[in-house]
Amino acid sequence: MKKNLAEFFGTFWLVLGGCGSAVLAAGFPEVGIGLVGVSLAFGLTVLTIAYALGHISGAHLNPAVTIGLWAGGRIEAKDILPYLVFQVLGAVAAAGVLYVIVTGNGSEIGGFAANGYGEHSPGGYSMTAAIVTELVMTFMFLIIILGATDSKAPAGFAGLAIGLGLTLIHLISIPVTNTSVNPARSISQALFVGDWALAQLWLFILIPIVGAVLAGMVYKYLSSE
Amino acid sequence: MKKNLAEFFGTFWLVLGGCGSAVLAAGFPEVGIGLVGVSLAFGLTVLTIAYALGHISGAHLNPAVTIGLWAGGRIEAKDILPYLVFQVLGAVAAAGVLYVIVTGNGSEIGGFAANGYGEHSPGGYSMTAAIVTELVMTFMFLIIILGATDSKAPAGFAGLAIGLGLTLIHLISIPVTNTSVNPARSISQALFVGDWALAQLWLFILIPIVGAVLAGMVYKYLSSE
Amino acid sequence: MKKNLAEFFGTFWLVLGGCGSAVLAAGFPEVGIGLVGVSLAFGLTVLTIAYALGHISGAHLNPAVTIGLWAGGRIEAKDILPYLVFQVLGAVAAAGVLYVIVTGNGSEIGGFAANGYGEHSPGGYSMTAAIVTELVMTFMFLIIILGATDSKAPAGFAGLAIGLGLTLIHLISIPVTNTSVNPARSISQALFVGDWALAQLWLFILIPIVGAVLAGMVYKYLSSE
Amino acid sequence: MKKNLAEFFGTFWLVLGGCGSAVLAAGFPEVGIGLVGVSLAFGLTVLTIAYALGHISGAHLNPAVTIGLWAGGRIEAKDILPYLVFQVLGAVAAAGVLYVIVTGNGSEIGGFAANGYGEHSPGGYSMTAAIVTELVMTFMFLIIILGATDSKAPAGFAGLAIGLGLTLIHLISIPVTNTSVNPARSISQALFVGDWALAQLWLFILIPIVGAVLAGMVYKYLSSE
Repeated sequence: MKKNLAEFFGTFWLVLGGCGSAVLAAGFPEVGIGLVGVSLAFGLTVLTIAYALGHISGAHLNPAVTIGLWAGGRIEAKDILPYLVFQVLGAVAAAGVLYVIVTGNGSEIGGFAANGYGEHSPGGYSMTAAIVTELVMTFMFLIIILGATDSKAPAGFAGLAIGLGLTLIHLISIPVTNTSVNPARSISQALFVGDWALAQLWLFILIPIVGAVLAGMVYKYLSSE
Repeated sequence: MKKNLAEFFGTFWLVLGGCGSAVLAAGFPEVGIGLVGVSLAFGLTVLTIAYALGHISGAHLNPAVTIGLWAGGRIEAKDILPYLVFQVLGAVAAAGVLYVIVTGNGSEIGGFAANGYGEHSPGGYSMTAAIVTELVMTFMFLIIILGATDSKAPAGFAGLAIGLGLTLIHLISIPVTNTSVNPARSISQALFVGDWALAQLWLFILIPIVGAVLAGMVYKYLSSE
Repeated sequence: MKKNLAEFFGTFWLVLGGCGSAVLAAGFPEVGIGLVGVSLAFGLTVLTIAYALGHISGAHLNPAVTIGLWAGGRIEAKDILPYLVFQVLGAVAAAGVLYVIVTGNGSEIGGFAANGYGEHSPGGYSMTAAIVTELVMTFMFLIIILGATDSKAPAGFAGLAIGLGLTLIHLISIPVTNTSVNPARSISQALFVGDWALAQLWLFILIPIVGAVLAGMVYKYLSSE
Repeated sequence: MKKNLAEFFGTFWLVLGGCGSAVLAAGFPEVGIGLVGVSLAFGLTVLTIAYALGHISGAHLNPAVTIGLWAGGRIEAKDILPYLVFQVLGAVAAAGVLYVIVTGNGSEIGGFAANGYGEHSPGGYSMTAAIVTELVMTFMFLIIILGATDSKAPAGFAGLAIGLGLTLIHLISIPVTNTSVNPARSISQALFVGDWALAQLWLFILIPIVGAVLAGMVYKYLSSE
């Protein structure tokens, strides 16, 4: 149960920090943090929780990560479901808190930080471009996670590499899909936006999981003796 | 006494670096550092002092941190008061030095880097939004601090995680309250601004402390065997 | 073979992340990541792969690095060629994936993230300025790599120093040549742009290698007892 | 001699990277790196050299640092002069290389990245504000250096804390003096600019050294048992 609560608080922080910085601060007049700031924020949520709660739950904070770690042989199948449930609960709780803050100056939430493709892609990228992007980004994210937490990698640096890896992924791909690589993050925003965000949600659940499973299999091969 | 002086110099640096970057450099024409730069600066004051003076005083630099560490069972009640006094003294000294620099080109200090809500929130956020924001941000800041300094966390990385955690908190919440999570920082600016900043100061003393105490209790439970 | 595949995936990530962030996100309206974001992205590709796959292949990701490590006495001549082949293959594969994404909103690739001098330098810098820049930047990059991976340097920090070193190099030199210091990266973009990018490609293959070999010789001397 | 050469290359990199990013990339149209990028660049020169060449020379890269370390009891008086000579030589060599690059698109060097006060302060700050700023910034820089390299601080993290400390110092103080805290850096730029930069150079030699010596004395007291 303490593991599950750690995943709850960690995923809460990922969504509140990442999506919160996007909605509250990215476009602030004159001094807004832009996509660099949002990318940093997403990465730093993972970096901070990895060092703070990693020793309790492993700090997955993401259903695709949990499933990819299973595909890579790091966790058992029976551990997957409770983590997924508490990740989604934490993400939705964060979206709720963010809703209260955002509307506290009379603003509407608009598209919140929901993920989208086609006309709902920030840069108008097609569904095909979105699939390629989410697939490759989640694949590489899991390669980084599996590699940096390998017992042969330098001890202690995994949280740094994984957190900044998520920053990197956002630096590349926010214009394409607003960057998911995390079904819990996508679900939390789509529930509040409804409509098109729910209709496109399948992609941001399915594709990150496929990318993560592929990475689990590839890394197993790469690291075998 | 050396511990107290270390807290004095550390909190001096936090306020001079964080508030100083905000007042001097955030809005500099064309090449200003914006809220990304201010967020980095606040975090790097903590990161640098954690590595430089952490082995002397623990580098709290913040009354809410000192009280949250007590709630989490890390320090004794008798250690709280002297730390609080020297933190506030260091913060006020920094505000004084900053006053001398800022007015050195003929500028007024205006709102300095004071914290505020309602019409004094940078983005016009209500008192309720400010309370929710400061409560959750300080709660998560203490979770990061308590977790990253846990004996089960990777040794040496706490200063990195905690410093960048403060950067993250600023990336999210400057538009809401100008970000406090630190009563000493808020007091130092309000003393120079007076008026509305003093009238709203209660929130930035009370709420961070409440968030920190809650985190102390939650982390104690999460990390119990 | 697993080493070669690690170089393939690593160089794939360097080009997809670095060039991808440049093409997709640098100039995004209002909130674009600019050259700071691109510089961070290039560096973080190396940082993440160093921690994730460094224990498999050493994470060179760059023909100039492989040749410079040979000049510095760190690897054997017979190891060079397969690494170079898989680095170029990974880089070209990334350019192909990036092509699919970029054209997914109807855009042309234009100059992609190709390197150039004279009228194809972002800031209009001459061939001489380009040669000096690429020579010195690759020289210092290899000094950082050879020094940070020296057995006398603090263990574990090499990935951080080398990755952020590449960020630094981009912060300085994107305006001059769009920053190469990596022939595989330059080849991958020139193949898609053709024309002037192929005609100027010699410089971005030759000069980084010369700079790297010089650094290998200098570091050998500096670190000798 | 190898120590001296390491100081030469290290200070060369500090000036080429820090001043180079300022002159070449800070104000690049639309996507320029701004003062955030310049601050990062200065800090990353120190971070990279600390890990790469710290085990050879200690990576001072700055006459004020060398003198402050002497005041703090870390090095002997006879080691000061050769370090100072090679630091200044490295800095001037970097300014020469930068001159070749900058003028390679037909630009004049203008004020280069020289330090100044009064009408030559970027933000028009007075000589008094400049003295206070350089004094306090160098004082805190040396506190960070002395503390993070103390045998009681976490091993290996000094390069990170010191490098990012220099980033922080630039985030705060570029608008006031263009940030020196390093006489070698100031001398190198003033030699190429001449005129007012030479006339104001005394401040950027004298004040950083005074701040560094004060810090050496204060840290000795703070860390005594």
